[in-house]
This record gives sequence, structure tokens and C-alpha cells, in this order.
Amino acid sequence: MGNTVKRLAVLGSTGSIGQQTLEVVRALPHRFHIVGLAAGENTDLLAQQINEFKPRFVCHQNIGAPVHLANAEYELLSLEEIASHPEVDAVVIATSGKAGLSPTLAAVKAGKKICLANKESLVMAGEIITNEARLNAAQILPVDSEHSAIWQCLAGETQPPAGLILTASGGPFRGYSSAQLGEVTAKQALKHPSWQMGEKVTIDSATLMNKGLEVIEARWLFDMPFDNIKVLIHPQSIVHSMVEFIDGSIKAQLGYPDMRLPIQYALSYPERLPNSQLPRLNWDSINNLTFEPPDLDTFPCLRLAVEAGVKGGTCPAVLCAADEVAVDLFLSERIKFTDIAKLVEQVLEKHQVIAHPTLEEIMMADAWAREQVLQLITGDNLCGLP
Amino acid sequence: MGNTVKRLAVLGSTGSIGQQTLEVVRALPHRFHIVGLAAGENTDLLAQQINEFKPRFVCHQNIGAPVHLANAEYELLSLEEIASHPEVDAVVIATSGKAGLSPTLAAVKAGKKICLANKESLVMAGEIITNEARLNAAQILPVDSEHSAIWQCLAGETQPPAGLILTASGGPFRGYSSAQLGEVTAKQALKHPSWQMGEKVTIDSATLMNKGLEVIEARWLFDMPFDNIKVLIHPQSIVHSMVEFIDGSIKAQLGYPDMRLPIQYALSYPERLPNSQLPRLNWDSINNLTFEPPDLDTFPCLRLAVEAGVKGGTCPAVLCAADEVAVDLFLSERIKFTDIAKLVEQVLEKHQVIAHPTLEEIMMADAWAREQVLQLITGDNLCGLP
Repeated sequence: MGNTVKRLAVLGSTGSIGQQTLEVVRALPHRFHIVGLAAGENTDLLAQQINEFKPRFVCHQNIGAPVHLANAEYELLSLEEIASHPEVDAVVIATSGKAGLSPTLAAVKAGKKICLANKESLVMAGEIITNEARLNAAQILPVDSEHSAIWQCLAGETQPPAGLILTASGGPFRGYSSAQLGEVTAKQALKHPSWQMGEKVTIDSATLMNKGLEVIEARWLFDMPFDNIKVLIHPQSIVHSMVEFIDGSIKAQLGYPDMRLPIQYALSYPERLPNSQLPRLNWDSINNLTFEPPDLDTFPCLRLAVEAGVKGGTCPAVLCAADEVAVDLFLSERIKFTDIAKLVEQVLEKHQVIAHPTLEEIMMADAWAREQVLQLITGDNLCGLP
Repeated sequence: MGNTVKRLAVLGSTGSIGQQTLEVVRALPHRFHIVGLAAGENTDLLAQQINEFKPRFVCHQNIGAPVHLANAEYELLSLEEIASHPEVDAVVIATSGKAGLSPTLAAVKAGKKICLANKESLVMAGEIITNEARLNAAQILPVDSEHSAIWQCLAGETQPPAGLILTASGGPFRGYSSAQLGEVTAKQALKHPSWQMGEKVTIDSATLMNKGLEVIEARWLFDMPFDNIKVLIHPQSIVHSMVEFIDGSIKAQLGYPDMRLPIQYALSYPERLPNSQLPRLNWDSINNLTFEPPDLDTFPCLRLAVEAGVKGGTCPAVLCAADEVAVDLFLSERIKFTDIAKLVEQVLEKHQVIAHPTLEEIMMADAWAREQVLQLITGDNLCGLP
């Protein structure tokens, strides 16, 4: 390792995690070099990033790309080609939704270091991805603040831990009743009290679905049975998660809610790097850290996710897909906030689970679940939501 | 390592830490075997311990020892002989006060694993002990809950940390004014809100001197400048201490205030061992963890200790010795609680520091300081305490 420069590809470079990854790279240019960038619809920002970082490989999905994109000196490659390219040392997978799955799998099969910010890959295909990672000696380095916290706490420990404790802010509606939740707007749901994130994950944080997806991720990242993964509501978002060891000792990782720290840790691992732009905790202003159990009756998405994780097979993929469509419907004001959980639950109930599914079976379950949500909200079924 | 049985000597086996060490050994008899026991005045309890654990080496300081002590089959050795004996794998140094220094040095010179619960050794002679440990490849494994917490948080980290944060309960008089402190009794001071400990350390916790001694210990154990060691009052005594890394990330170690966990960690290191007798944190009853800066005006002992640590040389030995005598005087109701800090400060002011002292110079400084305290409280000087 030493002081070599790590060659990075950032997939999803115009999203929230992608932009913060580039901030870290900007602060540490002697350690990281961008060789690949990929983004979807935000072509203007991608063009700026290409001008600044001059990557060798680019993937963009807009046909009508601006002229200066076409003029630049880079190869246009697919997400999978960039993720597995021999000249890429580490791939940051910051694409959102199921679009992250295929490049993650390509990177895993190429034995890369994968800084994984995309939740859906492990939730949908955790068994396949972790098996392939083992076969190809790929390293999956978590970028989520919770999983990064657990990973940091596990450093130097030679035995499997007794349990994991994922913390959750509780979102903007902590303490609301179900009746109150039925009335909240997308605008309210998008105001997260402690984290700045993309729209989908912000809504998932408000429903606690996000924490449920993280529980499933933790199961795969740390090979931990669901029974030993606990969720605690911690509104200050200072303790990012904890690990309990077999002697009862607990370690926690703390910091302000700022994704640049877990991003940088995944990039710099096994080293830590000084970065004056990362904030230091000021204990003069931190008086109180509070913890409470999650309210699974008012926020059923967490329960649904863990149940889907325990059932396994294609269930988590169905959960993910149904949630993605339901969140879109909520953001476009076609359903109520509380309908998200209802739709996900109804689709899961109808699903006939396939154990140890292939990638094709996972994709079919995904498509089926999306279709089911749309069927449920059209015609008579829309009024039929209990 | 594997599943071999570790041969332990426990010096100070009848004190609080000594007894709790034997509790851990009792719970894990397949991993630990007592080969040496040493105690001072509590000969009855030592006799019981000898009957139970059948050590090969014993040190006791009472001439009039009971008959069954003399009948048992063990060798009577000095503390230093036990601490350095080839048949001892690890030495638990749980003797209190400066009596711990000489056996610690013997163990360090013999290249032992030293589970160090005695504060005074490192405070008085940190430079000598850490130098000898380096020369003889001895391992000093902290038993104090704060230093154990820091040590656990440092596991797997390959770079020096940016800073240490020692937590302190604040003792029974947290929030008191100086005037109120002047009236407190020894009985009140001995009621610690969260920890069960010996008398000396309980009074030191009430004055915050204990935390000051721990800052000096931390400086030597972790080679950390005083400027980078911070103290935070945390009345719940759940977070035992924290480490800040160069990227701003913080790790903390948590658990109930129960010395058996840090004792066991030092004994079992680098492994952790399951022990059903050690309590698990119950998050249903932990709602609030609070933190506040220490009040150095009302509790000047913490400031005095850090100042003595920064001055270095013989100053910490003088601090220790003056405090030990002053605490005795308070416990025997000859001085007020607030006089402890005044006496320590006056003795430190009179002291002419010797830099990089030899062990003899440290011992002379110790004797000088004890004499000074007694002089200050006799005759005219007693009324002279400002």
C-alpha cells in the first residue's frame, strides 16, 4: 500500500454519495485518482466532473449528451466494463436502486475492492454477491455510515461478534401516531433531521424501510444471523452503530452525520488519512445521546424488511422493488405515506418465494413486484388499500 | 495461544480488583490457573484463597499468620520473586499504592505479561517502566476500565490516534460548590454512585484525582501527549472511554461499570472469552448518556495531576505520595475533603523537580512528599491551610 495513488471508478458520480466521494478525492489528490466516472440523467454535472477529473473511462446514459462530452479524451464503456477494468483499483458503487446490482457483480467477479454505497445489491442478491466475493477474493467495503461503524468496531477483533446494534435517527416523523403519519406530505418527509441524502433513501429513512434494508445488508456483510442484529433509535445520529462481543463488551463508532467520513474510510482502508475538511466532534455541544426502541407498529416497514430477510430467497428483492415503486408513487403524490408499507406488505403476502434464487429469478421477482404495486393502485384496487 | 491454560499470579489478591480477578478465574477454570497469590493484611481471606486455588507461590506480610497458612504446600516468596517467576505467564498487579511499583518493575524486567491495575507504578515511574518494558519485550495490559476501553478501541488500528477521551463519573459530589465540598464526610465520599472500589480510589474518584492519575497513566500506556488527552464527565459510567483517530472518527467502548470485564479482557487478550457471569448492556434501560466538561475550579485535583504530569520528573511521584497521605488523613477525619487538594498543591509548590529521575530519586521524592504533608498539618501549619 504505502503512499501509492489508488485509481478509483465512481459509479453514480452525480448523486449525493458520488459527489461527496469526489469531495474526498479533491481533498486528497495525492492519494486518489479518478479513472472512471458514470452517471445517469444529470449530464451537465457529469460534464463538469469529466472536465475536472479527466477520467479515462466514462459511462453516461443520455443520448443527447452535450458536445464537450463527446470531445473529451475518454473511452465510453458500460458500467460493468468500468467496474471490472484492470486499470481500476477500487470501484465506488453509488448508483441508486437495482441499477447497482449488475456493476457490483461485475466488480466482485473481477476481484476488485468495492466501496459499496448501493443497498439494493446486497439486499436483492446478498447470497450470490457474497459467494462470488469469496470465490474471487473481492473485498466489499461498506460505505453506509452504519456498516462502516460496525466494520471499524470489528477492526483487530479475531472472533465473530455476539451481535450488531444498528442505530437509526428515527427520521422526521419519530413519535408520530399512525393517524398523523397518514397526513404527512412528500415535502415533510424529505426534510431529514440529521442526514443530507438522496430522495429515495430520505423517504426510506422516514418509513424506517432504510433501516430494514440495512439490517439485511448487515446480515450479508458480517455473516450475522438476524436474531443477533438489533435496531436502536438514536435521534442525534452521533453513534453510527455498535458491536457487542462475546464477553459483553460493546464498541461504538461516533462522528457527526457526514457521509464523507465513511466514504473516506472505505477509500483509504486499511489506513486512515487526515483530512482537515472532515469535522471533529465538539463535545462542548454534545450533552445528551439518547436511545429508544423502534416503534414497529407505527413504522411497519422495518418489521416487513426483517421478515423478508428472514424468509430470504426472492423476498428481499420483492421488498426492495415494491418499496421503490411505492416511494415513487408517494413522491408523485399518488399514494399516502402510510400506503408505502401497506403496498409492500400486500405484495410480499402474494409472493411465492424462491429459495437460493439465480440472478434471473431475482430479476423476475423484481419485475413481478413492480407490476403488482401498479396493479394494486389502479382501478378498484386503489380504494382497496386497507 | 489457542486453548492453553494461562498461569497467573495475583498480587493484591484480597483487594477489590484481586477478588474480582479470582471471580473471573473461578468462572473460566479451563483457561486460567492461579500459581501465585500475594496479599497484605487480610490474612483470613488470603488463607481461604490459598485453600481454594492452591497456588505454588505465596507472599504475605503478616508475621502472625494462621496455622493452616504454614501447613499448605507452597513456597513463600517475595512480591518481586513471584512477579518474575519463570512459571508465571501473566502477573495481575492489583496491590494498591506505591507497593505496586517494585513488583511491576520486576515483572517488566522479566518480560512478563503484566495486567496492571496499580495506578501508582506508571504515575510515579512511567518513564522507567515503559523503557524497561520496551527493552525486555514485556507487555503492559491495562486493567483500569478507562485504559482498557482505549486499548480495545485501538485494536486493529495501525496508526497512532489523534487523541484520547477519558470519561469520569464525576463521583458522588458532581455539581457541588466548593463550600458544599468543605462539609462532606468520609462516609459520604465513600458512596460512589456507579463503581464499587477500594477506599483510596473511591476518595480519589470523589476529588477527581483518580482521573488525573489516569491521564498520566494514559500518557505512558499510549505514548500520547497531555494536550491530546481530554476528560469528559459522564455520570452513567457506561461509555468507559473513547479514542479519536486522525480522520475524525471516534471509537468508544461501552459496558456496565463492572471491573470483571476489563480484568477478563486483560487476562484473555488477544482473545475474548464468553462468561455468562458478565452482564450484557440492556438497552431498554439505557435511555440517556450525558457528557459535560469537568469543573476544574471546584475539583482542582484533576488540574493538579495534569500539571504534575506535564512538569514530569519527580512531580507525579510527589503528587501521588502527597495525595495518599492526604486521603488517609481525610478518612481518619483529621482534615476536610477540600484540604486534600490544598495539601497536594502546597507540597507540589515546594517541590524541586528532578527530571528523568532514577528509582531512588523517585522514592526519595515520595518520602519527602509524605513528610511534607505531615509537617503541613501539624502545629501552626494545620490552621495555616488557606
